[in-house]
Amino acid sequence: MLHLKSSTSERWLQQVEPHLDELLIDHAHCERKAAGTAMSLLSAYVEHEQLCRDMTRIINEELDHFHQVLQHLARRGVRFRRIPPSNYGRRLHELVRKQEPQRAIDRMLISSLIEARSCERFGLLRERLNDRELAEFFGSLFECEARHHSTYVQLALSFGKDRDVRNRLEELAFAEAGILEIGDDFPRVHS
Amino acid sequence: MLHLKSSTSERWLQQVEPHLDELLIDHAHCERKAAGTAMSLLSAYVEHEQLCRDMTRIINEELDHFHQVLQHLARRGVRFRRIPPSNYGRRLHELVRKQEPQRAIDRMLISSLIEARSCERFGLLRERLNDRELAEFFGSLFECEARHHSTYVQLALSFGKDRDVRNRLEELAFAEAGILEIGDDFPRVHS
Repeated sequence: MLHLKSSTSERWLQQVEPHLDELLIDHAHCERKAAGTAMSLLSAYVEHEQLCRDMTRIINEELDHFHQVLQHLARRGVRFRRIPPSNYGRRLHELVRKQEPQRAIDRMLISSLIEARSCERFGLLRERLNDRELAEFFGSLFECEARHHSTYVQLALSFGKDRDVRNRLEELAFAEAGILEIGDDFPRVHS
Repeated sequence: MLHLKSSTSERWLQQVEPHLDELLIDHAHCERKAAGTAMSLLSAYVEHEQLCRDMTRIINEELDHFHQVLQHLARRGVRFRRIPPSNYGRRLHELVRKQEPQRAIDRMLISSLIEARSCERFGLLRERLNDRELAEFFGSLFECEARHHSTYVQLALSFGKDRDVRNRLEELAFAEAGILEIGDDFPRVHS
């Protein structure tokens, strides 16, 4: 349902569980960046009515999540700050084709895959984290991420032929799995 | 209260009243751009807690206004589309100083002045438009724009000394009045 080509490994869980404060800081940045990306898409395709409605809802929801993460950090006494991001987003965005409408399709599909991966990992954190308060929090975001994934796939389909878009989703999903396979040195939502 | 150094002239009202559809299209773009600017400020100063809360509220309100304008366009049977913007925003943003924290102060103050000018003009449209449905709509946005103006001034004050920020607000307010004095060829919210 999430179109992912790999399941998150034990390696990731072992990397992030001892560094939950850092994971949360990265998570807050991810929510903010997701809102920023949705705003860019709204600006780029402002004549697309359905897209404008969907992006507005997503922006509101991502910013709401951003503030929820900040509250969790405050409760834990952790100062929110800038930290180096993982390479995941940058590597994915390098795959965007330059010409329209391929560019629009790729931007939508990449957002759909990022949401799908967050969804999958939040599901894992919900099941496996020993910190049950955080486990429940991640679980509470699960459905919303799945919905965003599906919204972005639907929007991608509005820019091209069904078969072309679905083939490209397959390609990008394999690329996404490959990027995660390389991994990152720091504990991140998408390391 | 709005710190403006000029009152909107009859010339502007005469320019826009025969072109209300075009004015509304520009207005929708202005609301979207205001949301985008607030998102950029949130990203740029993400460690500033109050700023993040304020920008989130402003983003939500501007996007809500954007959709309200789109509904008015739809009711009037006007297709929303890209149109050339006025030179107002670009000219104002050219005045932003490069170094922090001056850059932050200028970005906040320029946003405060844009909100102030929208507020003043929406007040005028509320009083003077013969199209009473639109007049009421512009009136309904009046208070929100005034509040955004005041929020941005308060945020600017958090980045510098009170007297320095207030002097800069004076300078930029004179510059804003000068930019509007030049005017624009097309009927725009800030022509």
